[in-house]
Amino acid sequence: MTRTRIAVLGCGRIGRVHADSAVSSDRAELTWVFDPVGAAAQEVGMRCGAAWTTEVDEVLAAADVDAVVVASPTPTHIDLLTRAVRSGRTVLCEKPIDLDIARVDACRAELGDLTERVMLGFNRRFDPSFAEVRRRVEAGEIGPLEQLTIVSRDPAPPSASYIASSGGLFRDMMIHDLDMARFFLGDVVAVSALGSNLVSEEIRGAGDIDGAVVVLRGAGGQLATITNSRRCVYGYDQRLEAFGELGALSAANQHATSVTFSGAGHTAASGPVLNFFLDRYTPAYRAELDAFITTTRAGTAPSPGFEDGRAALLLADAAEESLRAGTVVEVGV
Amino acid sequence: MTRTRIAVLGCGRIGRVHADSAVSSDRAELTWVFDPVGAAAQEVGMRCGAAWTTEVDEVLAAADVDAVVVASPTPTHIDLLTRAVRSGRTVLCEKPIDLDIARVDACRAELGDLTERVMLGFNRRFDPSFAEVRRRVEAGEIGPLEQLTIVSRDPAPPSASYIASSGGLFRDMMIHDLDMARFFLGDVVAVSALGSNLVSEEIRGAGDIDGAVVVLRGAGGQLATITNSRRCVYGYDQRLEAFGELGALSAANQHATSVTFSGAGHTAASGPVLNFFLDRYTPAYRAELDAFITTTRAGTAPSPGFEDGRAALLLADAAEESLRAGTVVEVGV
Amino acid sequence: MTRTRIAVLGCGRIGRVHADSAVSSDRAELTWVFDPVGAAAQEVGMRCGAAWTTEVDEVLAAADVDAVVVASPTPTHIDLLTRAVRSGRTVLCEKPIDLDIARVDACRAELGDLTERVMLGFNRRFDPSFAEVRRRVEAGEIGPLEQLTIVSRDPAPPSASYIASSGGLFRDMMIHDLDMARFFLGDVVAVSALGSNLVSEEIRGAGDIDGAVVVLRGAGGQLATITNSRRCVYGYDQRLEAFGELGALSAANQHATSVTFSGAGHTAASGPVLNFFLDRYTPAYRAELDAFITTTRAGTAPSPGFEDGRAALLLADAAEESLRAGTVVEVGV
Amino acid sequence: MTRTRIAVLGCGRIGRVHADSAVSSDRAELTWVFDPVGAAAQEVGMRCGAAWTTEVDEVLAAADVDAVVVASPTPTHIDLLTRAVRSGRTVLCEKPIDLDIARVDACRAELGDLTERVMLGFNRRFDPSFAEVRRRVEAGEIGPLEQLTIVSRDPAPPSASYIASSGGLFRDMMIHDLDMARFFLGDVVAVSALGSNLVSEEIRGAGDIDGAVVVLRGAGGQLATITNSRRCVYGYDQRLEAFGELGALSAANQHATSVTFSGAGHTAASGPVLNFFLDRYTPAYRAELDAFITTTRAGTAPSPGFEDGRAALLLADAAEESLRAGTVVEVGV
Repeated sequence: MTRTRIAVLGCGRIGRVHADSAVSSDRAELTWVFDPVGAAAQEVGMRCGAAWTTEVDEVLAAADVDAVVVASPTPTHIDLLTRAVRSGRTVLCEKPIDLDIARVDACRAELGDLTERVMLGFNRRFDPSFAEVRRRVEAGEIGPLEQLTIVSRDPAPPSASYIASSGGLFRDMMIHDLDMARFFLGDVVAVSALGSNLVSEEIRGAGDIDGAVVVLRGAGGQLATITNSRRCVYGYDQRLEAFGELGALSAANQHATSVTFSGAGHTAASGPVLNFFLDRYTPAYRAELDAFITTTRAGTAPSPGFEDGRAALLLADAAEESLRAGTVVEVGV
Repeated sequence: MTRTRIAVLGCGRIGRVHADSAVSSDRAELTWVFDPVGAAAQEVGMRCGAAWTTEVDEVLAAADVDAVVVASPTPTHIDLLTRAVRSGRTVLCEKPIDLDIARVDACRAELGDLTERVMLGFNRRFDPSFAEVRRRVEAGEIGPLEQLTIVSRDPAPPSASYIASSGGLFRDMMIHDLDMARFFLGDVVAVSALGSNLVSEEIRGAGDIDGAVVVLRGAGGQLATITNSRRCVYGYDQRLEAFGELGALSAANQHATSVTFSGAGHTAASGPVLNFFLDRYTPAYRAELDAFITTTRAGTAPSPGFEDGRAALLLADAAEESLRAGTVVEVGV
Repeated sequence: MTRTRIAVLGCGRIGRVHADSAVSSDRAELTWVFDPVGAAAQEVGMRCGAAWTTEVDEVLAAADVDAVVVASPTPTHIDLLTRAVRSGRTVLCEKPIDLDIARVDACRAELGDLTERVMLGFNRRFDPSFAEVRRRVEAGEIGPLEQLTIVSRDPAPPSASYIASSGGLFRDMMIHDLDMARFFLGDVVAVSALGSNLVSEEIRGAGDIDGAVVVLRGAGGQLATITNSRRCVYGYDQRLEAFGELGALSAANQHATSVTFSGAGHTAASGPVLNFFLDRYTPAYRAELDAFITTTRAGTAPSPGFEDGRAALLLADAAEESLRAGTVVEVGV
Repeated sequence: MTRTRIAVLGCGRIGRVHADSAVSSDRAELTWVFDPVGAAAQEVGMRCGAAWTTEVDEVLAAADVDAVVVASPTPTHIDLLTRAVRSGRTVLCEKPIDLDIARVDACRAELGDLTERVMLGFNRRFDPSFAEVRRRVEAGEIGPLEQLTIVSRDPAPPSASYIASSGGLFRDMMIHDLDMARFFLGDVVAVSALGSNLVSEEIRGAGDIDGAVVVLRGAGGQLATITNSRRCVYGYDQRLEAFGELGALSAANQHATSVTFSGAGHTAASGPVLNFFLDRYTPAYRAELDAFITTTRAGTAPSPGFEDGRAALLLADAAEESLRAGTVVEVGV
C-alpha cells in the first residue's frame, strides 16, 4: 500500500517524536523535515532518512508531501498551519494553536472551512488507557457520566525561561486536561479555578501559579475536576477516573515493568511511574499519527480538530479569569 | 482498672453503634441508655445489659455515669449536650452540633469554657487508614502538604424525608469531609463549590443537590478537593490522597476479604467495597470512643472538639454560599 | 438466648486466643479455665471473668460446662480430649491431635464414634478470605479445580527448644497447609516433598528443614503445591490461589490499613503484611469458635473433625517419607 | 553506524517475529529471508524489504549476511545452525536445539568451540520484568535467593498435530521455565515432577500431560517451583516470584492498558492479561535480537548459549524421567 508522505516542520523535542512515529509506522514515509536551525534539521533528516531544509517553502513546494506536522514553537503555529493548509495538505498542529484567542479567531476567520483540514495534537486522546476509558464510557458501561476526575502532575517544573513564554499553567499545561475534560463531557458551560504557589519561587516571580484545581461543569450538568502540579517526585502522574450511575472506570499510572518488591520496610512496591511524557505517551503519539494518516487518506474532518484547539484555549482563558476574579466563569457553548 | 461508665442518649442507628462500642471496650461500661421511645431504649438496654429509661433526667441524675454520648436527632443535640456538660460529665456529641450556626454560637456563648468538655463525633478522624495517613504526613514523610484529594460517595441516596430535615448535602454529608480537610490542612481560608443534580429527582425537588465538588484553600496555600455523590453503585466510596513535595500517601477503599477473581471477562477483580458506614467505620467508632474515654479520664480538652464542629459547619455554610453566589467565599480564620 | 458455656484447657498463647474469642462472642460464656501452672490459670481466669483451676478434673466435673477447648501442649491433647469427650462434652482440639500417628490411631480405636464429637482446630478454614475462595470454588465459579497454590511463610523461625519438640516442619507448620489442601481437593493420593536448610543452623542441627515445597495429587487428578519457609522478612506470608477451567480465585496478603505510599524510590507501596498469626487470624479464630458452638448446639459432627486431623498427619508423615526416600509417596484414600 | 545484516531462516510465526524485530531495530538490517515454501518467503521478504529465497545455500553464500537467525521447524535446527556457524556467521537459534539429547550431544561434539557462536532463543530472559527481577536479585536486594516460583500457563492447548511432534509438555512448553529457573538458580541438581490430564482428551490420547508441577533444587540448595497448564481462560499467565532473606521480588501479569472497572458486581477489575506470547514478549524478542547483535559485533560468547539450550533439555528429560518413575531425579551438574 502507498505510504502517506509526511513532512515535519520543527526539529525540536516534539518534532523528533513525530518524526520517529512516522519512521516506525508502516503506513507513513517521512519525506521532509524542516527547521530554521540547519544542524537540527540535518541531524533529524539524516537519522530518519528524510530530506532536510532550513526553508519551509521548499517543503511546501515539494511534490512528495501529502501531510504536514507542525511541531515548531507556538508563535509560529498559525503561520505554518495556514501556509500548509493553503498548500493543499492536511495538517497535524501541535497544541496550542496560539496563546492568544484573538489570533486564533483571526486565523479561523481567514481559513474558513479549511480549518477542517487541521488536526490538533492533543495526544492524550490517543493514550490507549484514556481512549479505552472513553470508549467504554461511550458504550454505556458506567451509564451516563456524572463525575470526571483528572490528576496531571509534571515530574519537575520547567525552566524560568520556558515559563516566561509558556502562557501560564492553564494554557501550557492544563490545556491537555481541559481538552481531556471536553473529550469526555462535550461542551463545558462553567469553569472555577483555584491556584497555588508552593513549588517554585521562580514561577511565582513570573506571575504564574505552579499548582491548581479547576472544576468544570458540562452542558449535561456533569462535574469534572482537574488537579495539576508542576512537581511530582514519583514521576509523571497521569490518572483519570470516570464515574457514573453504573460504576467507575479508572486509568492508573503506568510503570516500565510489572515488578514489585516486598521487604522489611514496605510491601508490594512498584517502581517509579513512567517519568517523562515521551515514555508515557509514546504509544499515544504513534496512534495520533496513525489517526492523522487515516483522516488524511479519507479526506474527512479530523478529531480533535481546530475547533477543539480553540475550545480548550477558551477554557484556559476562562480558568485564568476565574482565578483572578474569584468567581465561577460561565462559558458560551 | 475501673471502667468509664458511659450513658448513651438516643437509641437509633448511631446510638446503637456507640452502645456496641462501649460494650466491646474493656475500658468502658455501658450503664445507661435513653430514648424517648421506650421500646427502643428497652431493646438496646436489655441487649447491652444497661439500665434504660425514657427520661433523660434520670440518666443525668444517676450516680453511675461518668461520660455521656449524645446520639439523638440533630435538633436535640444542643439541649442534651448542654445539660450533660452542666451535669459535670464529658460529652461525645454526634455531628453536627446543630444545622444553624446562630444556635451553635448561642450555645457556645452560653457554655463558655465548658465547650472544652465536648468532643465532636467526627469518627473518620479515627479511621485507621486516614489516621495513618495523617500521622505520616505530620511526621514529614511527604514534606509539607500541598494537595489533598477526598472522594466520598454514599452507596445510595437517603429517603426524601431524611433529605428534608438534613440541612442539605454540605451540612449533612460533606461536613465529614470538610472536617477531614481541616484535620489535614488546619485553618481554611477560602471555599469554592459546584453542585449537580444527576442522581435523584426527589433531592432536586427538595431544593438540594446530590453531587458536589468543593475546593478549599488552607491558610498555608494548600488546595483540598472534596468530591461527593449521593449514589455509588460499587459501595461506600471513601478515599483520600495527600500529596506533597516528597510524595503521596493514599488510603484506598477497603474490602471484606483479600480475594480477587480472574476469568474470561476480567482479571484481578476484588469484591464490592465495604458498603455501609457501619462496616467501613466500625474500627473508627471504637477508636473514637476509646479516645473519648482517654480524654474523659485525663480531664483534657478533646480532639476534635466543639470548635471543630463549629468550624466544619462554617465551611458547610460557606460552601452553600459559594454554590449560590458562584464565587469563591473567603472564610475568617 | 442461652450462651454455650465454654471451658478452656491450657492457658498458654493459643489458650488465651480461644478464651478471648469466647469472651467476645455473644453466643458463648467462658466459665472455666485450666492450666497446671496456677499463675497462668489465675491470670486468664481473672481477666476473663471465669473460674480457674490447676486441676482438670474440677473442670470436667463442673456443672456449668457445655463444651471444652483443648489448647494444652500437644503431648497432652489425646488424654484431655478423651476425658472431655467421655465426660459428655464436645471438644475443640488444637492441632495436631498428636505427633505420632500410632497414638492417634489408638485413640481413634478407643473412642470409636465418640470422635465425631471432636472438632479439630484448623483455624485457617475459617479465615474469611480462604473460606470465601473455597465457597466460590464450590459454587463453580472457576469450574472444577485443577491447580491449587499455597504459600505459607512464618515471619521468623521459632526457638531451638520449640523445634526440638515440634515434630518437624511438616507436622508442626505445614500441617495447616496440608489440611488446607484437603479442604479444597478432598482426598489426596500422592505426596512429593523437597526440603531446604537455608534459614537456620539451629534447625539444621536439630535435623529439621526450614523450607520446603510439597506437591500433592488429589483423587481427582488435581495438583496442589505448598511452599513453606520458616522466615519471611515482610511478615506472615499467607496466600492461596485456586485455578480451574473458568479462571482463578486468589487470596492475597492482608495489611493493617489500606494506605500506600509513592515517593522518589518506589510507588504504591503498602505497609508490612499482618505480621503475626494472631493479627492475621483473629477473625478466623472467632469464626472457628462460633462454628464449634453451632455444632455443639446442633449435636452434629463438626468439620473439620478428628478424621481431618488424622488425615493431615498422615500427609505430613508421607511428606517426611517422600523427603527421606526421594520418591513420590502414594497415600491410601 | 553500520547495521548488522541479519538473515532469518524460516518464515513461520516465530520467523516473522524475528524479521519484524530486525526491521524495527536501528542497529540491524534484514537482508535475507529463507523458507522452503516460496509464498511464505516472498511475503515476508517483500513486506520487510529483504531478499528472499527457497534455497538456504543462497543465504549462506550471500555477502551481505553477518548473522543468522534459525527459526525453522525444530528438526532442522541442528542442520541449519551447523551450516550457518560453519559459514562464519553467529547464530541465534530458536529453542529447543533438538528434542533428542543424543543429537544435541553429537552436534556439540562436532562443533566443538564453534558452539560458542550460538545464542539460544530463550526470549523470556530478555522480558523487561523478568530481567529486572534477575538484575535486582543479582544486586542483592533480597539477599541470597532461597525460593523461586514460576507460573506459566498458555491461553489454550495447541492442536493435536502440534502436540504429536512437540516432544511433550516438558520439552515444548516448560523448557522456557526450566531455562528461567537456571537463569536464577544456576546449576540444578535435582528434579521432581508431577503431571495431570485435566484439560484435553486429545493430549491425553497423545500420551502427553497438559498440566504439571516441577520442583527443582539448585546447587546452592534453593528450591524452584514451576507450575504449567495448557489452558488459562484469562490469558497468557506468566508470573515469577523470587524470595530471599531480605524480601521478595515479583513480576505480575501485564495488561494492554492500566484501566480498571468498579461496578455493582466487582471492583478494581483489570482487563484480560496480555493474551498471546507475541503481545507479552514483543519487547523481549526485540531485546533478545539486540543482545544477539551486541554479541555478534563484540565476538564474545552469547548468553544464553548452546550449553544453556542443552542444560534445559537435560532438565526436561529429567522431569520426564521423574514423572515416569515417581522419584526425584538427580542431575549431573
